[in-house]
Amino acid sequence: MSLDIKTYLKDKRTVVDRYLEAHLPDPRTPPAVLHEAIRYSLLAGGKRVRAFLPGATGYGRRAGGKRVRPILTIAAAEAIGPCPASLLPVACAFEFIHTYSLIHDDLPSMDNDDFRRGRPTNHKVYGEAMAILAGDGLHAMAFEWCSRADLVTDLDPVCQVQIIAELALGAGNGGMVGGQVLDIQAENRQVDLAELQQIHVHKTGKLIRAAVRVGALLAGAGMTQFEHLTGYAEDIGLAFQIADDVLNVTGTREELGKDAGTDDERGKQTYPAIYGLEGAQQLAQDCAARAIGRLDGFDEKADPLRGIARYIVDRKN
Amino acid sequence: MSLDIKTYLKDKRTVVDRYLEAHLPDPRTPPAVLHEAIRYSLLAGGKRVRAFLPGATGYGRRAGGKRVRPILTIAAAEAIGPCPASLLPVACAFEFIHTYSLIHDDLPSMDNDDFRRGRPTNHKVYGEAMAILAGDGLHAMAFEWCSRADLVTDLDPVCQVQIIAELALGAGNGGMVGGQVLDIQAENRQVDLAELQQIHVHKTGKLIRAAVRVGALLAGAGMTQFEHLTGYAEDIGLAFQIADDVLNVTGTREELGKDAGTDDERGKQTYPAIYGLEGAQQLAQDCAARAIGRLDGFDEKADPLRGIARYIVDRKN
Repeated sequence: MSLDIKTYLKDKRTVVDRYLEAHLPDPRTPPAVLHEAIRYSLLAGGKRVRAFLPGATGYGRRAGGKRVRPILTIAAAEAIGPCPASLLPVACAFEFIHTYSLIHDDLPSMDNDDFRRGRPTNHKVYGEAMAILAGDGLHAMAFEWCSRADLVTDLDPVCQVQIIAELALGAGNGGMVGGQVLDIQAENRQVDLAELQQIHVHKTGKLIRAAVRVGALLAGAGMTQFEHLTGYAEDIGLAFQIADDVLNVTGTREELGKDAGTDDERGKQTYPAIYGLEGAQQLAQDCAARAIGRLDGFDEKADPLRGIARYIVDRKN
Repeated sequence: MSLDIKTYLKDKRTVVDRYLEAHLPDPRTPPAVLHEAIRYSLLAGGKRVRAFLPGATGYGRRAGGKRVRPILTIAAAEAIGPCPASLLPVACAFEFIHTYSLIHDDLPSMDNDDFRRGRPTNHKVYGEAMAILAGDGLHAMAFEWCSRADLVTDLDPVCQVQIIAELALGAGNGGMVGGQVLDIQAENRQVDLAELQQIHVHKTGKLIRAAVRVGALLAGAGMTQFEHLTGYAEDIGLAFQIADDVLNVTGTREELGKDAGTDDERGKQTYPAIYGLEGAQQLAQDCAARAIGRLDGFDEKADPLRGIARYIVDRKN
């Protein structure tokens, strides 16, 4: 495999960021503060921002996210074949859902986090009320971008409705929101492995699964391809969460852009707590290998998906 | 006009409530508390509930809402002609958006309300974190119910995508969420009439407008009908808000199911504050009359819409 996954991710991130910059509501139009608050959590502003973390001396991570979910949508579509122009607004919808969930998750009544991606969290800058509304606005915008006739121009409407259903189911009560409820309920008590998996399958897994499946739908995947990509997505979803748990133990605050070791402090159950650090690292590697195995029937167009599976477990933040 | 609007509203409310009861996630399935919290704010439980308001002596209002938005969708569709079976899940989506906005709006960092519809607000019962998530779950569920293949069975997918776009635009930054931001920004300072109207057009008007337009789309309205119904919706949206402001002054806590006179305490600008009580009442009546005028080209199938316009300005809660 000759693909350099870091270059691929960087290139696609640029594509996503440029599309966002060009299509997000203008921050000069009212209500300006809402558009600003949304951009604050969503965008890097095109450059690396100075880390606001107390004690930080240099420039921190990009304020914008890694765009894992939209890139998964793009990579899954590319694994099948030619991509429609409407790929980008739909891929961005997954970033909107993810970002809104981070904003709400950081609120004082939820995780009460002061830092995210190396900067003060949304509510620390704009206040709680605006952070709740910025999250709500992003949430609606995800569905707006999947349905607006001026953005989605070349999709079969039957496919488009399927895509919207995947997004809603991945984000909602049976997906991400349900997973966050399970997560809250599990704090400060002993959970077994089955319960921990249920939390992660819902909290992060279902949206990642939807992102991949939507990419497959966009590019017109056949039933067998769709099933294999679904399996791939479930495997990397789990790998992603295990790797996140591991990073919460091994990462530094500067690498993570937020406080490290917080899971332990909050009494959250994690994979390293159950399997030990090395055991959890091995488990993440196994998940990634299984995900790559699901792509056996795919040609080199699926190399980005293979690279992403490896990247997820090898990343430092 | 022989239609009894109160009977019509009661009948349609029953239809909506039954559909909700039959299709909402089972509260016995996990995460049970999420499904409970959603039902708490959404449903009356089929009976009038005892008012929890301190000092209340009898039974209060129905805990569930008046279902104004889904009934508007139904009535707009009926004004055009035969309705598809998929009318109900789509109509319910508007109730989900409305209910999520109430839950979030009541939060301590927003309006900090303890009572809603005669009962303690969602966060007073389930806590802030669960209230935020119940709102988020309802928000996603609105789009789920508009896109799920098992619920929406007989819509042209092109029309279905248009409906989803209407819902998202009415709910989002250019609609309800944007309006709430404008509302927050206007607290405790003098706003002029133009600004007050901007707040209401967005905060309540756009979702009501979308509910009516979606009903028209569902029933296959022609372009002219669609435009007249859009005008009707804009007029009743304004009437609705003026009437709400009036009720906040004239209503008792028992009639409203929440504290009365709160706008004044919070320094909120209102129509009675600008026009005086009688002036505001007259303005609401004028809006309702203008809305009814928009329906001149419609036959008796639009009588429910005419009745609703009158009901909005004559109601006591």
